[in-house]
Amino acid sequence: MNKSYKIDFEPVGLRGKCMPGISLLECARTLGVDLVNLCGGNGTCGQCIVQIIEGSVSCLTKTEENFLSPDQINQGYRLACKTIPLSDLKVSVPPDSLTTPQRTQVESMDLPVVPEPLVKMYDIEMTAPGSNDLCSDSRRLINRLKEQYNINVLSIDLDVLREMPVYLRDNNWKARAVLRENKIIALGCQDSRLAGIAFDIGTTKIAAYLLDLNTGRTLASKGMMNPQIKYGEDIIARLLYAQESQKQALHIREILSNTLNQIIGDLCSYAGLTNNDIFEIVVVCNTAIHHLFLGLPGKSLSLAPYIPVTDSELDIKAEKLGLKTAKGAYVHFLPNIAGYVGADHVAMLTALEILEQKGIVIALDIGTNTEICLLNKGSLTSLSCASGPAFEGAHVKFGMRAGQGAIERLRIENNKVIYKTIGGKPAKGFCGSGILDIFAWLYKAGIMDRTGKLTDNHPLIRKINGINHFVINIKDQDKSQCFEITFSQKDIREVQLAKGAVRTGIQALLKANNLTEKDIDKIFIAGAFGSYIDVKSAKTAGMLPNIPSNRFTQVGNAAGLGSRLALISRSRREQARYIARQVEYLELAVFPDFPEIFAKSMYLDS
Amino acid sequence: MNKSYKIDFEPVGLRGKCMPGISLLECARTLGVDLVNLCGGNGTCGQCIVQIIEGSVSCLTKTEENFLSPDQINQGYRLACKTIPLSDLKVSVPPDSLTTPQRTQVESMDLPVVPEPLVKMYDIEMTAPGSNDLCSDSRRLINRLKEQYNINVLSIDLDVLREMPVYLRDNNWKARAVLRENKIIALGCQDSRLAGIAFDIGTTKIAAYLLDLNTGRTLASKGMMNPQIKYGEDIIARLLYAQESQKQALHIREILSNTLNQIIGDLCSYAGLTNNDIFEIVVVCNTAIHHLFLGLPGKSLSLAPYIPVTDSELDIKAEKLGLKTAKGAYVHFLPNIAGYVGADHVAMLTALEILEQKGIVIALDIGTNTEICLLNKGSLTSLSCASGPAFEGAHVKFGMRAGQGAIERLRIENNKVIYKTIGGKPAKGFCGSGILDIFAWLYKAGIMDRTGKLTDNHPLIRKINGINHFVINIKDQDKSQCFEITFSQKDIREVQLAKGAVRTGIQALLKANNLTEKDIDKIFIAGAFGSYIDVKSAKTAGMLPNIPSNRFTQVGNAAGLGSRLALISRSRREQARYIARQVEYLELAVFPDFPEIFAKSMYLDS
Repeated sequence: MNKSYKIDFEPVGLRGKCMPGISLLECARTLGVDLVNLCGGNGTCGQCIVQIIEGSVSCLTKTEENFLSPDQINQGYRLACKTIPLSDLKVSVPPDSLTTPQRTQVESMDLPVVPEPLVKMYDIEMTAPGSNDLCSDSRRLINRLKEQYNINVLSIDLDVLREMPVYLRDNNWKARAVLRENKIIALGCQDSRLAGIAFDIGTTKIAAYLLDLNTGRTLASKGMMNPQIKYGEDIIARLLYAQESQKQALHIREILSNTLNQIIGDLCSYAGLTNNDIFEIVVVCNTAIHHLFLGLPGKSLSLAPYIPVTDSELDIKAEKLGLKTAKGAYVHFLPNIAGYVGADHVAMLTALEILEQKGIVIALDIGTNTEICLLNKGSLTSLSCASGPAFEGAHVKFGMRAGQGAIERLRIENNKVIYKTIGGKPAKGFCGSGILDIFAWLYKAGIMDRTGKLTDNHPLIRKINGINHFVINIKDQDKSQCFEITFSQKDIREVQLAKGAVRTGIQALLKANNLTEKDIDKIFIAGAFGSYIDVKSAKTAGMLPNIPSNRFTQVGNAAGLGSRLALISRSRREQARYIARQVEYLELAVFPDFPEIFAKSMYLDS
Repeated sequence: MNKSYKIDFEPVGLRGKCMPGISLLECARTLGVDLVNLCGGNGTCGQCIVQIIEGSVSCLTKTEENFLSPDQINQGYRLACKTIPLSDLKVSVPPDSLTTPQRTQVESMDLPVVPEPLVKMYDIEMTAPGSNDLCSDSRRLINRLKEQYNINVLSIDLDVLREMPVYLRDNNWKARAVLRENKIIALGCQDSRLAGIAFDIGTTKIAAYLLDLNTGRTLASKGMMNPQIKYGEDIIARLLYAQESQKQALHIREILSNTLNQIIGDLCSYAGLTNNDIFEIVVVCNTAIHHLFLGLPGKSLSLAPYIPVTDSELDIKAEKLGLKTAKGAYVHFLPNIAGYVGADHVAMLTALEILEQKGIVIALDIGTNTEICLLNKGSLTSLSCASGPAFEGAHVKFGMRAGQGAIERLRIENNKVIYKTIGGKPAKGFCGSGILDIFAWLYKAGIMDRTGKLTDNHPLIRKINGINHFVINIKDQDKSQCFEITFSQKDIREVQLAKGAVRTGIQALLKANNLTEKDIDKIFIAGAFGSYIDVKSAKTAGMLPNIPSNRFTQVGNAAGLGSRLALISRSRREQARYIARQVEYLELAVFPDFPEIFAKSMYLDS
């Protein structure tokens, strides 16, 4: 009875053996499948839904009957936490049951470059030393690399020197040398793969990609929350936390590196690799996360005029940052531009090949801070605007992150509200794209005027405590429960500030370049939120300029793509450096007419 | 009564304040004067002799009367451990009372180069950032270095970045940037000096020099025993010790780095500097010490054919080696040549400017291992011969290191033995130079034949346990005590092996170059032992070839000089690298006719 079962999770492609008696949720954890499980496997959240495709499992529980529709039950859907495998299984995981891909956008894309990694692996064979061949181990290796590959080795990592004599003799004078440019950083073993990880570390979320550096293929990807969030949703709070003491600065570094190590471990085990196969890491993030991670003091970054300690690209030993990789591996940080325009912006511009674009081009990534870049005749101007967390669900009563049950699409037809939630789950609130839709449709339906004021007399509007609220009645179909979620005049003002900030940034860039909206040839919208919005709603809401929709392109997680490009291509890394130095930074706070532009940007349909 | 006294130690030039009631030995320790004190200040070794020049001290003790002659007492000599200052003092320290300079040869020499250090310090002034000048701290610094000094900074140490924001603001945007080539490795403070330390780490002794990198001046020097000696006088024993476990390998590294830290601290406090003023370290040592210090496995080095892990020059962060210096400082290791021809040999050749020499030149440093180099028409051949520790006093019954009471000179005239001891102390045994004299004079006096056999019938020879012994009667003049020290036929054989090995090396080099002794234009004899020997005796003993004495030059601690040159001059460091790669290594063990050459070399007057 101690025979283990083979469990195959599709379409994520994770498979492996699990001991009998443990739940499918446990199996999933073991194999690195990140099932949503808000309740910790207690059967109270009903989120870890999977479909049994092949094989037999334990009987359906009462708990599951409560969460699953009869249709779902007929199709073999189960809650993973309540299901025990009784044979080998093939299990299908619906996208909504994964914590990861939902709206973090770590999905693999084919990379549009020929792999040209900074780190390379070379197999060589040497002759053993003897009394007529007394050359040192290191010189033997160096000479052979020169003879066989015409490489000039300039240095060897001390840790490599320390393991080299035993390694060479144990491997019969065959070696797999790992070079980073002209430095030998590691000695691989016979089955070691040359892999690297690209991290896109956001204020809220972390996206990570494990790449084969030889083929450029993305072997695995993973999303996770940034654990530093517990010290503040906004970055200033975290910078202040770190400034309070050395201990706190170290702690906020360590919780991040611990999470990164967890991700490294998960990605490696998913791809059948070990940490020792990771020879290079690229990190892109905003300037504040960059400083927190590197242990750079954040005081000048947290106070106007927000001066970063450094904006240069950096190569730091992974070991020095507490990351568990091959010993000689480095972490490459893409350059920053300013205190609030970080390497993630540089990575986005790199991924978009911004300098290859024609005409007047705008690229933006909307988040708590929105960074916007304008390309005009080969010159780049970037700025950052504090758009705030309204689109992440904060400061809006029924706002929520883009998780299950969030209204992501909404329209109003004949005074009826039609909406769609993520995962088709009962509506719990609005995520960013839904909020933008509400905004646009309240205006289009004549329920809200251009200034954002809700009308007093409308069936969808109700006064609560003297304040107008847009009210949506939610019916839980199966249980005929009925409740309401609302969007108040106060919520509208929050969103107006957020969308107004984004629009202000665009207008300021145009003005600084003596351009108008009509001149814009293309707008790239990057990032998780930007990828899911309805561009028409964004135009109606006045967040984005009212230009033809075919001039907009939603490009997904361009920063993540940029980080992967920098990981596998030296020339793209070089381009990132070049772009970063080309960008002229515009400080919005000191921009002339800022208040006037901002006021205008608050309007709808502007 | 709590007033402190000012104590001035001359000629070492160390002075400072000491609290009343503590002994002069304690004062000396506090001020960094290294008085010999084998007994730990108990008054039983009688070695910490000093002379009171000015001021008043506590009364003479019985102990001192036992150790000092009436003449010495009249001249104000005292034992420092038994003498308490009663006023400000001026104290003269005889050379023999210092642990340091005796025969370690760390004495300062003017260096024949213009300082051209790899590490330089630049004072710059920046303007503070403002809302119209948002450039990052690092770029501000980099730009200013470019403007003011036309330096292209390529990178900044992470630790520097971490301290930079506070530093720049606290110093009102003035900075003293310390660069190593194009990397900023530290930020100095207003009174920081740009200093470095050159270490010549021998198997037995360590010589250290503190240099001002701007002026090239040697500010202080110090000698100390290599603490690793407790794990074996010979280097193979230490390599084996380190191979036994990771823990032991770490331990033997740490006791060395602890001692080096002690030396760094002592040198700094002597020169009024702090560890943070030390921005560069150069280390020269033999290949085995090099491997032990760097934590490189020594197995292949301890077994024939003695393959080193690496022979390349290395730059390692001082921090990584546990050395306490400025945080960003590096340790530069000069390159090695072979398992038994190390960086100390390279340093010697560099100091001698070997490639600038004319004619056929031999340079050698005699020790437990003797490294010899031959220059012939611009090409260099080096080898190592295992001369053993006989000249260090080991394996010879009355052999001793070159300390007080060692017979360092000896001659035999009319069957009378005339000798001189180090420090004029009662003879306790022979040091290397004395042994060589005995050897030469026994032969010249006809007491020993060319093969090294002692005659049976001679007043200076006595059979003890059936073996002939050369006997010296020692009279302690003051106390009319009389005892004898001896040099037996067995001792002679030991010395024959030692001196024969050196001579074998010379002969093999000549033979490999198709030369004979007559062709030699110059022989440089380096090292502590080599500096004190009587060249005539060395020739008579057959250790050195019998060529005119004016072709010999005793050059002192050339390896130490080479280490200092490499510390303050990039081009001399570059030369060292070049020399190391020019040297062809000759493996004596596989040299044709080795046994024959060796046998011949054992003879005297050969």
